[in-house]
Amino acid sequence: MRQSQLFTKTRREAPADEVSKNAQLLIRAGYIHKEMAGVYAYLPLGLLVVEKIKQIVREEMNAIASQELIMTALQRKELWERTDRWNDEIVDVWFKSELKAGGEVGFGWSHEEPIGEMLKGHLTSYKDLPISVYQFQTKLRNEMRAKSGIMRGREFVMKDMYSFAADEASHLAYYEATKPAYMNVFKRVGVGDDTFITFAAGGAFTKFSHEFQTVCEAGEDVVYVNRAKGIAINEEVLNEETLASLGVTKDELEMLKTAEVGNIFNFGQQKAEDLGLTYKNEAGDSVAPFMGSYGIGVTRLMGVLVEKFADEKGIIWPASVAPFMVHLVGLNLEDEVIRDWVDGVYQNLRARGVSVLYDDRDLRPGEKFADSDLMGMPYRVVASRKGKEAGTFEVVTRATGAVRHLTEDELYNDFDADPDT
Amino acid sequence: MRQSQLFTKTRREAPADEVSKNAQLLIRAGYIHKEMAGVYAYLPLGLLVVEKIKQIVREEMNAIASQELIMTALQRKELWERTDRWNDEIVDVWFKSELKAGGEVGFGWSHEEPIGEMLKGHLTSYKDLPISVYQFQTKLRNEMRAKSGIMRGREFVMKDMYSFAADEASHLAYYEATKPAYMNVFKRVGVGDDTFITFAAGGAFTKFSHEFQTVCEAGEDVVYVNRAKGIAINEEVLNEETLASLGVTKDELEMLKTAEVGNIFNFGQQKAEDLGLTYKNEAGDSVAPFMGSYGIGVTRLMGVLVEKFADEKGIIWPASVAPFMVHLVGLNLEDEVIRDWVDGVYQNLRARGVSVLYDDRDLRPGEKFADSDLMGMPYRVVASRKGKEAGTFEVVTRATGAVRHLTEDELYNDFDADPDT
Repeated sequence: MRQSQLFTKTRREAPADEVSKNAQLLIRAGYIHKEMAGVYAYLPLGLLVVEKIKQIVREEMNAIASQELIMTALQRKELWERTDRWNDEIVDVWFKSELKAGGEVGFGWSHEEPIGEMLKGHLTSYKDLPISVYQFQTKLRNEMRAKSGIMRGREFVMKDMYSFAADEASHLAYYEATKPAYMNVFKRVGVGDDTFITFAAGGAFTKFSHEFQTVCEAGEDVVYVNRAKGIAINEEVLNEETLASLGVTKDELEMLKTAEVGNIFNFGQQKAEDLGLTYKNEAGDSVAPFMGSYGIGVTRLMGVLVEKFADEKGIIWPASVAPFMVHLVGLNLEDEVIRDWVDGVYQNLRARGVSVLYDDRDLRPGEKFADSDLMGMPYRVVASRKGKEAGTFEVVTRATGAVRHLTEDELYNDFDADPDT
Repeated sequence: MRQSQLFTKTRREAPADEVSKNAQLLIRAGYIHKEMAGVYAYLPLGLLVVEKIKQIVREEMNAIASQELIMTALQRKELWERTDRWNDEIVDVWFKSELKAGGEVGFGWSHEEPIGEMLKGHLTSYKDLPISVYQFQTKLRNEMRAKSGIMRGREFVMKDMYSFAADEASHLAYYEATKPAYMNVFKRVGVGDDTFITFAAGGAFTKFSHEFQTVCEAGEDVVYVNRAKGIAINEEVLNEETLASLGVTKDELEMLKTAEVGNIFNFGQQKAEDLGLTYKNEAGDSVAPFMGSYGIGVTRLMGVLVEKFADEKGIIWPASVAPFMVHLVGLNLEDEVIRDWVDGVYQNLRARGVSVLYDDRDLRPGEKFADSDLMGMPYRVVASRKGKEAGTFEVVTRATGAVRHLTEDELYNDFDADPDT
């Protein structure tokens, strides 16, 4: 895309009331707009990143045979009353409103209840199981505080998945299969090595749930990690009993600040029983399926990527989620010969399937470079009169600052060879 | 996809409280789930249709240089108070709630106000114009009645676009350019010939707005059409003055029941003035841009397609939005030889890029055919023992009922040749 056509502008300063680094940078670079605390709109570049993360998550969830659907924001009071989760003293993040036609509605902060209710129309026999469904839902949560930018919002995008199984063995097998699927997501967005499958508080049915915690100074969690043993424990369950059951001692553990980018929860049969969801087993008896729920915070993950990879100049996107692979910075474009030549390079890169943001604006080189650093595409390619005369392009890798000078052929070959482009 | 893996089931009867044909059929076929009146979840097949319609709209909006973004559901009271549209006596479809942190929030039923406010951070000079932005937003509207299935919901997906121009000429040129872009959308989903650009009530700035009205018995509107002259008038503005200004008489007009699938509205400079949105013109003066807004009801359009094309057996999807192009109905699959052979046909079709729903379930042929008719894929391909022996497949075109018998090669060639597959 031509940057002259992009309506968003960069800015030197973030809004004074914005205290989080991720939102400061994303606002300054024109990726998001702050509607109110914890509520952000995603402008064209931001939406591209969200969609790229969603697509990676989608591919990994499809790979474990889950089926995408989309539930509703509006929630029926009576449905949530059955599980006593309409109660504001039990769930303190509801937004609720009055229906003009009479009665109250809520706004979806979670979706176990409607998913379970919907499934009653489709699950009858053990032959229908296993079932796994997921959605990318805009969750609405009436949070008291929202000071972490897009890492904790009142409105945010979450992938939530729900599995249903006829017996404990297939249920646990699915639960285990989600772990590598989740780790694939985190690897693909560039935080695999820094993300730990972490023991966290369980529920009625299991001692532990599992969280996916990514090392991040701006995170709200603290985990204790033993990298050699591959063990991570959320501080909320760090006690003698946990340590003993996992075979570690506290002094073997490293304390880390982390952000929870995913979690998986094993409900056993309890949740389906609460929801009144049953199926007929082979003997013809009505029994509750085993159920799991599995979340990934899509917009939170985007915030974590900004927090982890940014430097003092701006954002640094992993190639897999960058809005564009190449930021083509054209200089001396007031010279028509140069402009035609850079326009041609832009077209040639695109013809090779490389996604390119082309800075064709009438601005000083310093401003263009500053914007390019702030916006964070993986590669900056500078095309200038000097370069044309020398027959080379300056190619800067944003993450490392490494500078190469490539001929036009080398440039095209370089991006042809990159599987990420 | 293998139908044995699809968790949704068809059903003979729609819920007793569902009075609209579109929702009855979509529920029976497993496309949607009714959460409450006017609020529907989109199950895997339904989501595929929604996404196909969105992609068609996206391509046509991108083609007129609009940029996709996504605003928020949560709305700031103070922003809407400035234009007096927070007032429930002026806007009667608000859902509102209390923020735990103090104050009220609304839920987005429209987005002119936040779009205008957001643009203040990016629009400074006449050089920044024109700008056009759009989103696919889940709109929340507190409708008193909701009895038209997905054609009028309390929660629905809308494409809303907003244009901003420095002068009236470029503004009107963009307004006019949206008409063929909109008609392209309606042609591509199969209702081009039945959709009329219709004169409707304007506002402070213009005598008329324009609606895109599709002939549909279940629609809520009435328009008067002269097909020869290419004129259509919403009954709300059908009066002597309108007739005279358009050069038609009432007896030249045909009355039609229609559904409004899109509308475009010219605000002149009034709306931007109301929103306090300005830019600096060449003389350095602060002036309000000309503004237009342009909607397409994505889920309503899906409902209209069901209403218009369904027959007594079920849904008939246009190829451009069908969840799958081919419904491959396998019979005699209990015979392993037949099953292996049909499995191979399924793989061969998919390898050619044809999207296939493969009914590999253990059901009687009559049940499979009834489901296939109800679900409405454009082509049914029957693969059976008898067909294998004869060396042919029965291929039924859902819309016409036309039956062909094709050899395996002919089958593959047939779908290779179809640009829609």
